[in-house]
Amino acid sequence: MSDDTRRPFDVFNGACPSREVLEHVTSRWGSLTLAALSPEPARFGELRRCVDGVSDKMLSQTLKALESDGLVERHVHSTLHVDYRLTPEGERVATAVKDLILALYAVMPDVMEAKARTA
Amino acid sequence: MSDDTRRPFDVFNGACPSREVLEHVTSRWGSLTLAALSPEPARFGELRRCVDGVSDKMLSQTLKALESDGLVERHVHSTLHVDYRLTPEGERVATAVKDLILALYAVMPDVMEAKARTA
Repeated sequence: MSDDTRRPFDVFNGACPSREVLEHVTSRWGSLTLAALSPEPARFGELRRCVDGVSDKMLSQTLKALESDGLVERHVHSTLHVDYRLTPEGERVATAVKDLILALYAVMPDVMEAKARTA
Repeated sequence: MSDDTRRPFDVFNGACPSREVLEHVTSRWGSLTLAALSPEPARFGELRRCVDGVSDKMLSQTLKALESDGLVERHVHSTLHVDYRLTPEGERVATAVKDLILALYAVMPDVMEAKARTA
């Protein structure tokens, strides 16, 4: 492993490569796609149904970005059976995304009250 | 608290109110703004310098969305001193965002290798 790969990362710095990966992981569909793939692989159509509102085009772009980051792998079992699965790195990130979603659920009652006050 | 606030949330459902909050929290600038505000309050100018690349307009919109969710509060100490701070709910979500960023740093060396292979 080169020194370069071990240097500290900093998402606050727009030039740090971790910024782009954070954007893929937290994009409109990235976080939901990662969470939907954890812990079981899924086919494209299954993901599309799970992630309500995503289009074929956006899901395809999201999966390509996560594949290029090495977080998701596309497995071709046969022409009729292709699925997507998390790599170990993807699973680690997806676990953190799911924890974020759980933190959100925990505060949602308060968030709803705040919204009702300001509405 | 009404039954409504206690019903389960589901970010995968596009109609669930948690989806919109997830989008604020994981928006291009939302996640960085939350992380930048944890654990210390910050002034607008401090946030703008910390979150490299954000414009005044985008930071302002991001803070307004997080305020409407009850995750961030704007404190006016005087006309010359206004700062932004996390609510307890915001701190909980920001902690999860920071954990996600740390998970990302942990996998970044592998992500960089994956990118080098596909480049």
